[in-house]
Amino acid sequence: MKIGFIGLGIMGRPMAGHLQAAGHDLLVVERKSLPDEIVAGGAKVCGTAAEVAAGSEIVILMLPDTPDVEAVLFGPAGVAAGLSAGKTVIDMSSISPQQTKQFAARLAAQGCDYLDAPVSGGEVGAKAASLTIMVGGEEAAFERVRPLFELMGKNITLIGPAGSGQITKVANQIIVALNIEAVAEALVYASKAGADPAKVRQALMGGFASSRILEVHGERMIKRTFDPGFRIGLHQKDLSLALAEGRALGVALPNTGNAQSLFSACVAHGGFDWDHSALVKALELLAGHELGA
Amino acid sequence: MKIGFIGLGIMGRPMAGHLQAAGHDLLVVERKSLPDEIVAGGAKVCGTAAEVAAGSEIVILMLPDTPDVEAVLFGPAGVAAGLSAGKTVIDMSSISPQQTKQFAARLAAQGCDYLDAPVSGGEVGAKAASLTIMVGGEEAAFERVRPLFELMGKNITLIGPAGSGQITKVANQIIVALNIEAVAEALVYASKAGADPAKVRQALMGGFASSRILEVHGERMIKRTFDPGFRIGLHQKDLSLALAEGRALGVALPNTGNAQSLFSACVAHGGFDWDHSALVKALELLAGHELGA
Repeated sequence: MKIGFIGLGIMGRPMAGHLQAAGHDLLVVERKSLPDEIVAGGAKVCGTAAEVAAGSEIVILMLPDTPDVEAVLFGPAGVAAGLSAGKTVIDMSSISPQQTKQFAARLAAQGCDYLDAPVSGGEVGAKAASLTIMVGGEEAAFERVRPLFELMGKNITLIGPAGSGQITKVANQIIVALNIEAVAEALVYASKAGADPAKVRQALMGGFASSRILEVHGERMIKRTFDPGFRIGLHQKDLSLALAEGRALGVALPNTGNAQSLFSACVAHGGFDWDHSALVKALELLAGHELGA
Repeated sequence: MKIGFIGLGIMGRPMAGHLQAAGHDLLVVERKSLPDEIVAGGAKVCGTAAEVAAGSEIVILMLPDTPDVEAVLFGPAGVAAGLSAGKTVIDMSSISPQQTKQFAARLAAQGCDYLDAPVSGGEVGAKAASLTIMVGGEEAAFERVRPLFELMGKNITLIGPAGSGQITKVANQIIVALNIEAVAEALVYASKAGADPAKVRQALMGGFASSRILEVHGERMIKRTFDPGFRIGLHQKDLSLALAEGRALGVALPNTGNAQSLFSACVAHGGFDWDHSALVKALELLAGHELGA
């Protein structure tokens, strides 16, 4: 199948590679830093996103943020300019759910399907083709492209109509941030109160406090291994989306607001590129106490 | 072994029953509502806590709150008045870590060991003898009474010196409350944004957002099953302890403060006896939206 792939960064590069390795013909947009293996694998290099869309049955986007997706879709010589009725656009970026609904409506007016399909699992999951993929859009379109999703991920769920994938990703990022914050509050408290945080974590692992975050990020906090992982600067972007959604929809997200403030405090201390488990450092700063000290 | 057991409520009654069933001789304090099966099982009914302590090698407490423990230990005709050197007091209540350290010091001055050994797992865990038991105190005393713990629980951990068990329990209750709050924020947002909360929960179960709380309490929120479980009024008591600890030690617990406020809002709407997963109702109230509506 002819597949346009726009956004060959840390995530997009291995994802596109899996499609190519499965025998699909990729179309990509010319840029200085195109991955060698994608070009060597036979990808057709086009001058514009419109050309990519004109030559592809399906166009996949994997871009940093909402304005990037909007520019690639609807900017000059963008995807929309090259699409014709019956084609499908899949946005696998993590962007605004509200704007996603608008993008889907605009492309539907051109007779095209639009699926929002953000992922979780990070670079490791992208390379291992084990991403979790959360999809919003029409069921028929979803079933048609499911074989492509299966080349990139494992836990693939159609949640509901356009925007539902992005909504689910935002919900995921809220829970991940707040579970990190929860473990951080508990361990900083326990440590300053005089208990060994490693033993506390161990004792809590079997009960109702157990979570993937206590397991993985709790250990990072205790071992002080704050190399990403997932960067605080990126999680800030996701919580900005969450808080903008909360404002637009009228949903109070009090602890999401606190977590964002603590991420901002980390960034003020040089932590943009720290792993998000380093949120604990902001609470340590407030407590004047470092875990285990 | 002669074991004093003070506090035969919802938790203490089955716990004492397991000790008695294993052949231990119980001593209890006279009161109107002594459980029939404990008396029928041969428990010696004493007039005061001091008499219980005088006749026992080990005294176990399972009481509602810090003042109850203080009164039973050090009030008139209390446990301390009946103890002699070499005996062991085990407090399995969930109470103040700071005051626990003082209680332990006072009993140490009498030549007695003191273990704080709060539990998690609730009435179900107490009946099934599957409680998680978090212990603070001396290792020698812990090892001596470990066979008793093994009659009541499964995941039994010595965390560190006196107070460490209570510190760990507070840490547990912080994480449980904040993970409930996290799931509640995410599901209320997703639902009001237009996604099916049941599908969102399902999609998030395999990834980094996964937790026992998402699994168990997330389902209760969606199915609207708010019978306890664990009562909001009791979780409020635990978060009060956490916030008092935070103040005493100088540890900022911003999300614990928010969770307590949301529990208070539930109580204002009649929710003292709701399961703690009903915290979601406070966020629903703020959003003017009920999950799935």
